[in-house]
Amino acid sequence: MSNIQGLAAHAAGAELLPFRYDPGPLGAHEVEIAISHCGICHSDLHLISNDWGISQFPFIPGHEIVGKIQLVGSEVRDLKMGQRVGLGWQSNSCGECEWCTKGLENLCLKSEATCVRRHGGYADRVRANARFVMPIPEALESENTAPLLCGGITVYNPLRSHGINPSSRVGVIGIGGLGHLGIQFAKVFGAEVTAFSTSAAKEEEARALGAHRFVNTRETRALKDLACTFDFILSTVNADQDWSIYMQALRPNGTLCFVGVPPAPVSVHAFPMISGVRTITGSPIGPPHRIREMLDVAARHGLKAQTERFAMGKVNEAIERVKKNKVRYRAVLSN
Amino acid sequence: MSNIQGLAAHAAGAELLPFRYDPGPLGAHEVEIAISHCGICHSDLHLISNDWGISQFPFIPGHEIVGKIQLVGSEVRDLKMGQRVGLGWQSNSCGECEWCTKGLENLCLKSEATCVRRHGGYADRVRANARFVMPIPEALESENTAPLLCGGITVYNPLRSHGINPSSRVGVIGIGGLGHLGIQFAKVFGAEVTAFSTSAAKEEEARALGAHRFVNTRETRALKDLACTFDFILSTVNADQDWSIYMQALRPNGTLCFVGVPPAPVSVHAFPMISGVRTITGSPIGPPHRIREMLDVAARHGLKAQTERFAMGKVNEAIERVKKNKVRYRAVLSN
Repeated sequence: MSNIQGLAAHAAGAELLPFRYDPGPLGAHEVEIAISHCGICHSDLHLISNDWGISQFPFIPGHEIVGKIQLVGSEVRDLKMGQRVGLGWQSNSCGECEWCTKGLENLCLKSEATCVRRHGGYADRVRANARFVMPIPEALESENTAPLLCGGITVYNPLRSHGINPSSRVGVIGIGGLGHLGIQFAKVFGAEVTAFSTSAAKEEEARALGAHRFVNTRETRALKDLACTFDFILSTVNADQDWSIYMQALRPNGTLCFVGVPPAPVSVHAFPMISGVRTITGSPIGPPHRIREMLDVAARHGLKAQTERFAMGKVNEAIERVKKNKVRYRAVLSN
Repeated sequence: MSNIQGLAAHAAGAELLPFRYDPGPLGAHEVEIAISHCGICHSDLHLISNDWGISQFPFIPGHEIVGKIQLVGSEVRDLKMGQRVGLGWQSNSCGECEWCTKGLENLCLKSEATCVRRHGGYADRVRANARFVMPIPEALESENTAPLLCGGITVYNPLRSHGINPSSRVGVIGIGGLGHLGIQFAKVFGAEVTAFSTSAAKEEEARALGAHRFVNTRETRALKDLACTFDFILSTVNADQDWSIYMQALRPNGTLCFVGVPPAPVSVHAFPMISGVRTITGSPIGPPHRIREMLDVAARHGLKAQTERFAMGKVNEAIERVKKNKVRYRAVLSN
């Protein structure tokens, strides 16, 4: 096969430049996807800046991929040439450990990320282990489904795992790429949804997405008035907050769940945890079976990411808009 | 009826002095217990010192009570004169709220504590709502069962609620009044049990209680070597620790659960929570149905608190020994 062409970061924080690589022979359990769309996730920006110290340059970012299968490994049984599929953050796991055999591949210690130490989706093609390549239900459009492959499962999985249901009061902190999907999924679970944002201008959009209530978190008083209100609060932001206020906003047996990574340690008093069985936890993407389920739910309920489309060659402009928080709510590159 | 006689704190931190009070007419749903034994819990010491700012002086401490029923309210159906019973931290709840009707009375916001704004068990008698008074199984001895009514349920309830089972790896931080029961209960659940202590001298006792492994927490290296080891860590200590090390000691899906209250906020990074679904939570005592279950489990498995007995009149000496951490592992007053 010919080389794969993409746009790679060649140094921390640098603009992406055209890049080619030879993918080598296709693995027996791999497929190759001709990419039609790829979302720009904040994790890509962190990898480009090497904020986590795990980036190896040059590399092609991108892990919210939709496209069509154009090569199928000899041992792949469930995917076919031409089939429309998606690929998210994870593109392989060991397949043998406790977590893989429990259907929790996202916790595998040998997990491989689609664009960490390998090349991702800001490209014309990408390869992955077939177990991590999901058929896309016909009802879903490619552009606004691409962000579900990482952003969508990141918010869907904890809502599902924590048993969110029509009696639940759910809060979503941050209305961005993750948060705007969190609001929609929480609504689909039947929950009463409150959106927390520092941006009063987002109130109307939050309500349009399905939020029953909007709280401007710059108004500390409004937050304090919500003591003992929520069963589940999903934090999608990468900024530090006074987490004690959110702990107080939880009802007994309530949970504050992180999917965004605040830079500073999370600091909370033990007493409200003990007296009210309040819990702090986190959640990383989701296993393949949960991603398939999430796509089915999105198809059934007409749930989609709100996207801004950019041609693949405009990736640097798109990244600039993402960095300036101007995108509502996910930039998607298209070939 | 005659006045109730006990030993009361008259000011924060003062020695306990003899005290009498008129309990008034017996409520229709109350029973009066002639106390034979009462454990000394660290919470009593905090109340005597008014560390939590909720003490109203004078008051009689004590909430790990065993005795015999000697008065039965007109509406009480399930308890009889002369029956041996126990009473723990909670002596009433509203009975009507969401938590009470869910069998989670320990989360009731109108919960009444046995010795907060009322008089407890360092006395000849005590009264409580019959719903919070538990029959003691015949196989259990009163002296070493009294500490189960608060200390026992405090460690049993989280182990039970978090599904500890024979495949679980459990850590117990602190080998004291709570911890020595935590080790025993975790063993009864079939778990592999590791005891964490600052006191190397407790290793032999920890193993005798059922611990499979002992870790001296003054050896930071020993702790770090345990990364990714535990499904559940129960912290029974009231001292601050480097909680990040314990978070690292959790396996994916693992939980660090507080039953002791560290004074400073608990501070942990979000990343290990997110990447491994690691959870921090707490747990307060347990509801009446769980206390009954715990007593049955203790009777079936011969589980008992290790106690030092003091005559009720020697309460101040007993408290001094508790404060100096000399008691192995629970002081119990007897009439």
